[in-house]
Amino acid sequence: MKAVVLLSGGMDSVTALYAALREHEVVGVLTFDYGSKHNHREIPYAKLHAERFGLRHAVIPLGFMGEYFASDLLVSGGEVPDGHYEEESMKRTVVPFRNGIMLSIAAGYAESCGAEGVVIAAHSGDHAIYPDCRERFMEAMGAAIREGTYAAVEVLRPFIGMTKGEIAARGVELGVDYAETWSCYKGGELHCGTCGTCVERREAFAVAGLSDPTCYAGGGGNSEW
Amino acid sequence: MKAVVLLSGGMDSVTALYAALREHEVVGVLTFDYGSKHNHREIPYAKLHAERFGLRHAVIPLGFMGEYFASDLLVSGGEVPDGHYEEESMKRTVVPFRNGIMLSIAAGYAESCGAEGVVIAAHSGDHAIYPDCRERFMEAMGAAIREGTYAAVEVLRPFIGMTKGEIAARGVELGVDYAETWSCYKGGELHCGTCGTCVERREAFAVAGLSDPTCYAGGGGNSEW
Repeated sequence: MKAVVLLSGGMDSVTALYAALREHEVVGVLTFDYGSKHNHREIPYAKLHAERFGLRHAVIPLGFMGEYFASDLLVSGGEVPDGHYEEESMKRTVVPFRNGIMLSIAAGYAESCGAEGVVIAAHSGDHAIYPDCRERFMEAMGAAIREGTYAAVEVLRPFIGMTKGEIAARGVELGVDYAETWSCYKGGELHCGTCGTCVERREAFAVAGLSDPTCYAGGGGNSEW
Repeated sequence: MKAVVLLSGGMDSVTALYAALREHEVVGVLTFDYGSKHNHREIPYAKLHAERFGLRHAVIPLGFMGEYFASDLLVSGGEVPDGHYEEESMKRTVVPFRNGIMLSIAAGYAESCGAEGVVIAAHSGDHAIYPDCRERFMEAMGAAIREGTYAAVEVLRPFIGMTKGEIAARGVELGVDYAETWSCYKGGELHCGTCGTCVERREAFAVAGLSDPTCYAGGGGNSEW
Protein backbone atom coordinates (compact mmCIF):
# COMPACT_ATOMS: atom_id res chain seq x y z
CA MET A 1 0.00 0.00 0.00
CA LYS A 2 1.01 3.66 -0.18
CA ALA A 3 2.76 4.39 3.10
CA VAL A 4 4.45 7.17 5.04
CA VAL A 5 7.42 6.08 7.19
CA LEU A 6 8.44 7.70 10.49
CA LEU A 7 12.22 7.95 10.37
CA SER A 8 14.25 9.24 13.32
CA GLY A 9 17.63 8.11 12.00
CA GLY A 10 17.95 5.43 14.71
CA MET A 11 18.47 1.69 14.17
CA ASP A 12 14.83 0.64 14.27
CA SER A 13 13.30 3.29 12.04
CA VAL A 14 16.08 3.06 9.44
CA THR A 15 15.46 -0.69 9.28
CA ALA A 16 11.71 -0.05 9.03
CA LEU A 17 12.35 2.22 6.06
CA TYR A 18 14.44 -0.40 4.27
CA ALA A 19 11.77 -3.03 4.95
CA ALA A 20 8.96 -0.72 3.86
CA LEU A 21 10.71 -0.06 0.55
CA ARG A 22 10.29 -3.78 -0.20
CA GLU A 23 6.72 -4.10 1.03
CA HIS A 24 5.06 -0.78 0.27
CA GLU A 25 5.07 2.20 -2.00
CA VAL A 26 6.78 4.74 0.25
CA VAL A 27 5.23 8.11 -0.66
CA GLY A 28 6.77 10.13 2.14
CA VAL A 29 9.22 10.01 5.03
CA LEU A 30 8.77 12.11 8.18
CA THR A 31 11.37 13.14 10.73
CA PHE A 32 10.65 15.28 13.80
CA ASP A 33 12.95 17.93 15.21
CA TYR A 34 11.48 18.32 18.69
CA GLY A 35 14.32 19.83 20.68
CA SER A 36 16.00 16.66 21.92
CA LYS A 37 19.70 16.56 22.75
CA HIS A 38 20.32 14.07 19.95
CA ASN A 39 18.14 15.43 17.13
CA HIS A 40 21.16 17.11 15.53
CA ARG A 41 22.97 13.75 15.46
CA GLU A 42 20.15 11.53 14.19
CA ILE A 43 18.46 13.82 11.65
CA PRO A 44 21.46 13.85 9.25
CA TYR A 45 21.20 10.04 9.11
CA ALA A 46 17.48 10.27 8.42
CA LYS A 47 18.26 12.65 5.55
CA LEU A 48 21.01 10.39 4.23
CA HIS A 49 18.73 7.36 3.93
CA ALA A 50 15.78 9.29 2.51
CA GLU A 51 18.01 10.91 -0.10
CA ARG A 52 19.65 7.61 -0.99
CA PHE A 53 16.28 6.33 -2.22
CA GLY A 54 15.11 9.65 -3.65
CA LEU A 55 12.19 9.84 -1.24
CA ARG A 56 10.04 12.86 -0.39
CA HIS A 57 11.32 13.73 3.09
CA ALA A 58 9.93 16.32 5.48
CA VAL A 59 11.72 17.31 8.69
CA ILE A 60 8.94 18.68 10.87
CA PRO A 61 10.04 21.39 13.33
CA LEU A 62 8.42 20.92 16.73
CA GLY A 63 10.51 23.39 18.68
CA PHE A 64 7.59 24.12 20.99
CA MET A 65 8.17 20.72 22.62
CA GLY A 66 11.66 21.81 23.63
CA GLU A 67 10.18 25.03 24.92
CA TYR A 68 7.14 23.81 26.84
CA PHE A 69 7.54 20.10 27.50
CA ALA A 70 9.28 18.61 30.53
CA SER A 71 11.85 15.87 29.81
CA ASP A 72 15.53 15.25 30.35
CA LEU A 73 15.72 14.03 26.75
CA LEU A 74 15.28 17.65 25.68
CA VAL A 75 17.98 20.30 25.42
CA SER A 76 15.84 22.25 27.90
CA GLY A 77 15.90 19.36 30.42
CA GLY A 78 18.47 17.99 32.86
CA GLU A 79 21.17 15.42 32.25
CA VAL A 80 20.36 12.13 30.52
CA PRO A 81 20.79 9.35 33.11
CA ASP A 82 23.06 6.36 32.56
CA GLY A 83 21.85 2.82 33.02
CA HIS A 84 19.29 0.37 31.73
CA TYR A 85 15.89 1.44 30.40
CA GLU A 86 14.01 -0.56 32.97
CA GLU A 87 15.27 1.64 35.74
CA GLU A 88 13.02 4.20 37.39
CA SER A 89 15.49 6.96 36.51
CA MET A 90 14.63 6.52 32.82
CA LYS A 91 11.22 8.07 33.41
CA ARG A 92 12.99 11.41 33.24
CA THR A 93 13.67 10.77 29.54
CA VAL A 94 10.01 10.35 28.62
CA VAL A 95 8.84 13.13 26.29
CA PRO A 96 5.15 13.42 27.14
CA PHE A 97 2.90 11.93 24.44
CA ARG A 98 5.66 12.10 21.82
CA ASN A 99 4.41 9.06 19.93
CA GLY A 100 0.88 10.46 19.91
CA ILE A 101 2.08 13.75 18.47
CA MET A 102 4.27 12.12 15.82
CA LEU A 103 1.59 9.64 14.78
CA SER A 104 -1.07 12.37 14.61
CA ILE A 105 1.05 14.53 12.36
CA ALA A 106 1.88 11.50 10.23
CA ALA A 107 -1.83 10.70 9.94
CA GLY A 108 -2.64 14.17 8.61
CA TYR A 109 0.35 14.07 6.29
CA ALA A 110 -0.63 10.61 5.02
CA GLU A 111 -4.20 11.72 4.36
CA SER A 112 -2.86 14.75 2.50
CA CYS A 113 -0.65 12.74 0.15
CA GLY A 114 -2.96 9.80 -0.50
CA ALA A 115 -1.25 7.25 1.75
CA GLU A 116 -3.23 4.52 3.49
CA GLY A 117 -0.63 3.55 6.07
CA VAL A 118 1.87 5.03 8.52
CA VAL A 119 4.86 2.85 9.45
CA ILE A 120 6.31 3.16 12.95
CA ALA A 121 9.21 0.99 14.13
CA ALA A 122 7.67 0.06 17.49
CA HIS A 123 9.01 -3.29 18.71
CA SER A 124 8.47 -5.85 21.44
CA GLY A 125 11.22 -4.36 23.59
CA ASP A 126 9.63 -0.91 23.78
CA HIS A 127 9.42 0.05 27.36
CA ALA A 128 6.44 0.08 29.61
CA ILE A 129 7.89 3.05 31.49
CA TYR A 130 6.88 5.05 28.40
CA PRO A 131 3.07 5.21 28.52
CA ASP A 132 2.88 6.07 24.82
CA CYS A 133 4.72 2.86 23.90
CA ARG A 134 2.22 0.57 25.64
CA GLU A 135 -0.05 -1.69 23.63
CA ARG A 136 -3.25 -0.09 24.93
CA PHE A 137 -2.06 3.33 23.81
CA MET A 138 -1.05 2.02 20.41
CA GLU A 139 -4.38 0.29 19.86
CA ALA A 140 -6.41 3.35 20.84
CA MET A 141 -4.21 5.65 18.75
CA GLY A 142 -4.57 3.31 15.79
CA ALA A 143 -8.34 3.44 16.17
CA ALA A 144 -8.32 7.24 16.45
CA ILE A 145 -6.32 7.55 13.22
CA ARG A 146 -8.49 5.02 11.39
CA GLU A 147 -11.69 6.76 12.51
CA GLY A 148 -10.36 10.28 12.07
CA THR A 149 -9.27 10.05 8.42
CA TYR A 150 -11.29 9.60 5.21
CA ALA A 151 -8.82 6.96 4.01
CA ALA A 152 -9.03 5.06 7.33
CA VAL A 153 -5.25 5.37 7.59
CA GLU A 154 -3.69 2.34 9.32
CA VAL A 155 -0.84 2.47 11.82
CA LEU A 156 1.57 -0.27 10.68
CA ARG A 157 3.97 -1.79 13.21
CA PRO A 158 5.93 -4.38 11.23
CA PHE A 159 8.40 -5.01 14.09
CA ILE A 160 5.96 -5.27 16.97
CA GLY A 161 6.63 -8.99 17.37
CA MET A 162 10.42 -8.61 17.12
CA THR A 163 13.20 -7.76 19.55
CA LYS A 164 15.75 -5.09 18.79
CA GLY A 165 18.30 -7.84 18.13
CA GLU A 166 15.99 -9.42 15.56
CA ILE A 167 15.51 -6.02 13.94
CA ALA A 168 19.28 -5.61 13.65
CA ALA A 169 19.60 -9.05 12.04
CA ARG A 170 16.81 -8.21 9.61
CA GLY A 171 18.46 -4.88 8.82
CA VAL A 172 21.74 -6.54 7.89
CA GLU A 173 19.81 -8.79 5.48
CA LEU A 174 18.21 -5.67 4.00
CA GLY A 175 21.56 -3.96 3.51
CA VAL A 176 21.41 -1.44 6.35
CA ASP A 177 24.83 -0.17 7.47
CA TYR A 178 24.28 0.60 11.14
CA ALA A 179 27.26 2.93 11.17
CA GLU A 180 24.78 5.18 9.34
CA THR A 181 22.38 5.34 12.31
CA TRP A 182 22.35 7.20 15.61
CA SER A 183 20.96 6.13 19.00
CA CYS A 184 22.68 7.95 21.88
CA TYR A 185 20.35 10.26 23.81
CA LYS A 186 23.21 12.47 24.95
CA GLY A 187 23.94 13.67 21.42
CA GLY A 188 27.70 14.05 21.88
CA GLU A 189 30.27 13.62 19.16
CA LEU A 190 30.37 9.84 19.78
CA HIS A 191 27.79 7.44 21.21
CA CYS A 192 28.32 7.54 24.99
CA GLY A 193 27.81 3.79 25.35
CA THR A 194 26.23 4.11 28.78
CA CYS A 195 22.79 5.77 28.46
CA GLY A 196 19.66 3.62 28.16
CA THR A 197 19.52 3.65 24.40
CA CYS A 198 23.27 2.99 24.00
CA VAL A 199 22.99 0.02 26.39
CA GLU A 200 20.12 -1.28 24.27
CA ARG A 201 22.01 -0.69 21.02
CA ARG A 202 25.02 -2.66 22.22
CA GLU A 203 22.82 -5.48 23.48
CA ALA A 204 21.01 -5.70 20.14
CA PHE A 205 24.22 -6.33 18.19
CA ALA A 206 25.57 -8.71 20.83
CA VAL A 207 22.37 -10.77 21.05
CA ALA A 208 22.16 -10.97 17.26
CA GLY A 209 25.81 -12.00 17.02
CA LEU A 210 26.55 -9.06 14.78
CA SER A 211 29.58 -6.83 14.59
CA ASP A 212 28.79 -3.49 16.25
CA PRO A 213 30.08 -0.75 13.95
CA THR A 214 29.51 1.95 16.57
CA CYS A 215 32.37 4.02 17.92
CA TYR A 216 31.53 4.48 21.62
CA ALA A 217 33.15 7.21 23.68
CA GLY A 218 34.53 4.71 26.19
CA GLY A 219 35.46 2.19 23.51
CA GLY A 220 33.89 -1.25 23.39
CA GLY A 221 32.07 -1.61 20.11
CA ASN A 222 32.89 -5.06 18.81
CA SER A 223 34.52 -3.83 15.60
CA GLU A 224 38.00 -2.39 15.08
CA TRP A 225 36.94 1.23 15.69
CA MET B 1 -9.22 19.75 38.21
CA LYS B 2 -6.15 21.34 36.68
CA ALA B 3 -6.95 21.80 33.01
CA VAL B 4 -5.48 23.05 29.75
CA VAL B 5 -7.94 24.77 27.38
CA LEU B 6 -7.75 24.70 23.58
CA LEU B 7 -8.55 28.23 22.47
CA SER B 8 -8.83 29.18 18.78
CA GLY B 9 -10.42 32.58 19.35
CA GLY B 10 -13.77 31.42 17.92
CA MET B 11 -17.16 31.49 19.65
CA ASP B 12 -17.10 27.97 21.04
CA SER B 13 -13.59 27.84 22.45
CA VAL B 14 -13.81 31.32 23.98
CA THR B 15 -17.01 30.23 25.72
CA ALA B 16 -15.30 27.01 26.82
CA LEU B 17 -12.52 29.08 28.38
CA TYR B 18 -14.96 31.25 30.31
CA ALA B 19 -16.82 28.13 31.51
CA ALA B 20 -13.58 26.34 32.42
CA LEU B 21 -12.50 29.30 34.55
CA ARG B 22 -15.56 28.62 36.73
CA GLU B 23 -15.20 24.85 36.85
CA HIS B 24 -11.46 24.14 36.76
CA GLU B 25 -8.07 25.51 37.62
CA VAL B 26 -6.91 26.61 34.16
CA VAL B 27 -3.15 26.07 34.16
CA GLY B 28 -2.57 26.74 30.47
CA VAL B 29 -4.23 27.86 27.25
CA LEU B 30 -3.13 26.59 23.83
CA THR B 31 -3.69 28.15 20.43
CA PHE B 32 -2.45 26.67 17.14
CA ASP B 33 -1.11 28.67 14.21
CA TYR B 34 -1.38 26.07 11.46
CA GLY B 35 -1.40 28.14 8.31
CA SER B 36 -5.15 28.70 7.91
CA LYS B 37 -6.53 31.74 6.12
CA HIS B 38 -8.13 32.96 9.32
CA ASN B 39 -5.42 32.26 11.93
CA HIS B 40 -4.27 35.88 11.79
CA ARG B 41 -7.83 37.03 12.61
CA GLU B 42 -8.67 34.58 15.39
CA ILE B 43 -5.35 34.37 17.25
CA PRO B 44 -5.45 38.02 18.45
CA TYR B 45 -8.81 37.24 20.08
CA ALA B 46 -7.34 34.14 21.72
CA LYS B 47 -4.55 36.32 23.09
CA LEU B 48 -6.98 38.96 24.28
CA HIS B 49 -9.00 36.51 26.37
CA ALA B 50 -5.99 34.67 27.77
CA GLU B 51 -4.36 37.96 28.78
CA ARG B 52 -7.57 39.25 30.31
CA PHE B 53 -7.43 36.46 32.87
CA GLY B 54 -3.64 36.47 33.23
CA LEU B 55 -3.35 32.92 31.91
CA ARG B 56 -0.26 31.12 30.68
CA HIS B 57 -0.85 31.10 26.91
CA ALA B 58 1.19 29.34 24.25
CA VAL B 59 0.61 29.93 20.55
CA ILE B 60 2.01 26.78 18.93
CA PRO B 61 3.42 27.28 15.42
CA LEU B 62 2.44 24.44 13.10
CA GLY B 63 3.52 26.00 9.82
CA PHE B 64 4.33 22.57 8.41
CA MET B 65 0.57 21.95 8.09
CA GLY B 66 0.28 24.92 5.75
CA GLU B 67 3.25 23.59 3.83
CA TYR B 68 2.44 19.90 3.52
CA PHE B 69 -1.26 19.41 4.24
CA ALA B 70 -4.01 19.61 1.64
CA SER B 71 -7.03 21.80 2.54
CA ASP B 72 -8.81 24.85 1.20
CA LEU B 73 -8.89 26.20 4.76
CA LEU B 74 -5.15 26.78 4.47
CA VAL B 75 -3.43 29.75 2.88
CA SER B 76 -1.78 27.18 0.60
CA GLY B 77 -5.16 25.81 -0.54
CA GLY B 78 -7.90 27.00 -2.91
CA GLU B 79 -10.84 29.30 -2.21
CA VAL B 80 -13.06 28.69 0.81
CA PRO B 81 -16.49 27.67 -0.55
CA ASP B 82 -19.69 29.47 0.38
CA GLY B 83 -22.73 27.62 1.69
CA HIS B 84 -23.83 25.37 4.51
CA TYR B 85 -21.51 22.95 6.26
CA GLU B 86 -23.57 19.94 5.33
CA GLU B 87 -22.74 20.39 1.68
CA GLU B 88 -20.26 18.12 -0.04
CA SER B 89 -18.18 21.15 -1.06
CA MET B 90 -17.25 21.69 2.59
CA LYS B 91 -15.03 18.62 2.53
CA ARG B 92 -12.45 20.82 0.89
CA THR B 93 -12.12 22.76 4.15
CA VAL B 94 -11.18 19.69 6.20
CA VAL B 95 -7.63 19.95 7.55
CA PRO B 96 -6.57 16.32 7.80
CA PHE B 97 -6.50 15.05 11.41
CA ARG B 98 -6.32 18.56 12.81
CA ASN B 99 -8.19 17.66 16.00
CA GLY B 100 -5.91 14.68 16.53
CA ILE B 101 -2.82 16.85 16.19
CA MET B 102 -4.14 19.58 18.47
CA LEU B 103 -5.32 17.14 21.14
CA SER B 104 -2.03 15.22 21.03
CA ILE B 105 0.01 18.35 21.56
CA ALA B 106 -2.35 19.43 24.32
CA ALA B 107 -1.95 16.02 25.98
CA GLY B 108 1.85 16.34 26.07
CA TYR B 109 1.61 19.94 27.25
CA ALA B 110 -0.89 18.97 29.97
CA GLU B 111 1.32 16.13 31.19
CA SER B 112 4.26 18.56 31.28
CA CYS B 113 2.49 21.13 33.43
CA GLY B 114 0.67 18.80 35.78
CA ALA B 115 -2.82 19.12 34.30
CA GLU B 116 -5.26 16.22 34.40
CA GLY B 117 -7.65 17.45 31.72
CA VAL B 118 -7.74 19.04 28.27
CA VAL B 119 -10.84 21.07 27.39
CA ILE B 120 -12.01 21.11 23.77
CA ALA B 121 -15.17 22.96 22.70
CA ALA B 122 -16.56 20.12 20.57
CA HIS B 123 -20.36 20.35 20.36
CA SER B 124 -23.36 18.42 19.10
CA GLY B 125 -23.43 20.34 15.84
CA ASP B 126 -19.89 19.37 14.84
CA HIS B 127 -20.03 17.96 11.40
CA ALA B 128 -19.81 14.39 10.30
CA ILE B 129 -18.09 15.49 7.09
CA TYR B 130 -15.06 16.06 9.35
CA PRO B 131 -13.86 12.57 10.32
CA ASP B 132 -11.93 13.95 13.29
CA CYS B 133 -15.10 15.45 14.76
CA ARG B 134 -16.98 12.15 14.85
CA GLU B 135 -17.83 10.49 18.15
CA ARG B 136 -15.85 7.33 17.35
CA PHE B 137 -12.73 9.39 16.68
CA MET B 138 -13.19 11.39 19.87
CA GLU B 139 -13.67 8.28 21.99
CA ALA B 140 -10.60 6.55 20.57
CA MET B 141 -8.49 9.71 20.89
CA GLY B 142 -9.65 10.14 24.47
CA ALA B 143 -8.58 6.57 25.21
CA ALA B 144 -5.18 7.10 23.52
CA ILE B 145 -4.52 10.18 25.64
CA ARG B 146 -5.67 8.50 28.84
CA GLU B 147 -3.50 5.43 28.17
CA GLY B 148 -0.54 7.37 26.82
CA THR B 149 0.04 9.72 29.77
CA TYR B 150 1.14 9.02 33.36
CA ALA B 151 -1.60 11.31 34.68
CA ALA B 152 -4.26 9.54 32.55
CA VAL B 153 -5.14 12.94 31.08
CA GLU B 154 -8.85 13.24 30.25
CA VAL B 155 -10.29 14.92 27.17
CA LEU B 156 -13.11 17.10 28.48
CA ARG B 157 -15.93 18.08 26.11
CA PRO B 158 -18.25 20.20 28.24
CA PHE B 159 -20.38 21.28 25.25
CA ILE B 160 -20.76 17.92 23.55
CA GLY B 161 -24.48 17.79 24.41
CA MET B 162 -25.14 21.39 23.36
CA THR B 163 -25.90 23.13 20.08
CA LYS B 164 -23.94 26.19 18.98
CA GLY B 165 -26.98 28.31 19.82
CA GLU B 166 -27.00 26.92 23.36
CA ILE B 167 -23.28 27.64 23.65
CA ALA B 168 -23.89 31.24 22.62
CA ALA B 169 -26.63 31.60 25.23
CA ARG B 170 -24.35 30.13 27.89
CA GLY B 171 -21.55 32.47 26.82
CA VAL B 172 -23.71 35.53 27.29
CA GLU B 173 -24.50 34.34 30.82
CA LEU B 174 -20.76 33.93 31.41
CA GLY B 175 -20.02 37.46 30.20
CA VAL B 176 -18.53 36.64 26.79
CA ASP B 177 -18.67 39.52 24.33
CA TYR B 178 -18.91 37.75 20.98
CA ALA B 179 -17.63 40.84 19.17
CA GLU B 180 -14.33 39.63 20.65
CA THR B 181 -14.39 36.35 18.72
CA TRP B 182 -13.67 35.37 15.14
CA SER B 183 -15.27 32.65 13.00
CA CYS B 184 -14.94 33.42 9.26
CA TYR B 185 -12.76 30.92 7.40
CA LYS B 186 -11.90 33.43 4.70
CA GLY B 187 -9.97 35.64 7.12
CA GLY B 188 -10.83 38.93 5.45
CA GLU B 189 -11.15 42.26 7.22
CA LEU B 190 -14.79 41.52 8.10
CA HIS B 191 -16.66 38.24 8.52
CA CYS B 192 -17.87 37.31 5.00
CA GLY B 193 -21.26 36.12 6.26
CA THR B 194 -21.52 33.40 3.61
CA CYS B 195 -18.93 30.68 4.29
CA GLY B 196 -19.90 27.59 6.30
CA THR B 197 -18.72 28.89 9.62
CA CYS B 198 -20.27 32.35 9.11
CA VAL B 199 -23.60 30.72 8.23
CA GLU B 200 -23.35 28.69 11.42
CA ARG B 201 -22.37 31.74 13.50
CA ARG B 202 -25.39 33.72 12.28
CA GLU B 203 -27.70 30.78 12.91
CA ALA B 204 -26.39 30.35 16.46
CA PHE B 205 -27.29 33.91 17.45
CA ALA B 206 -30.62 33.76 15.63
CA VAL B 207 -31.68 30.44 17.18
CA ALA B 208 -30.67 31.65 20.65
CA GLY B 209 -32.59 34.89 20.14
CA LEU B 210 -29.44 36.89 20.77
CA SER B 211 -28.22 40.08 19.21
CA ASP B 212 -25.43 39.27 16.72
CA PRO B 213 -22.60 41.76 17.30
CA THR B 214 -20.77 40.69 14.15
CA CYS B 215 -20.12 43.12 11.33
CA TYR B 216 -20.56 41.00 8.16
CA ALA B 217 -19.14 42.14 4.83
CA GLY B 218 -22.57 42.06 3.18
CA GLY B 219 -24.36 43.53 6.20
CA GLY B 220 -26.97 41.60 8.09
CA GLY B 221 -25.80 41.17 11.65
CA ASN B 222 -28.78 41.90 13.86
CA SER B 223 -27.11 44.75 15.72
CA GLU B 224 -26.54 48.35 14.61
CA TRP B 225 -23.10 47.76 13.10
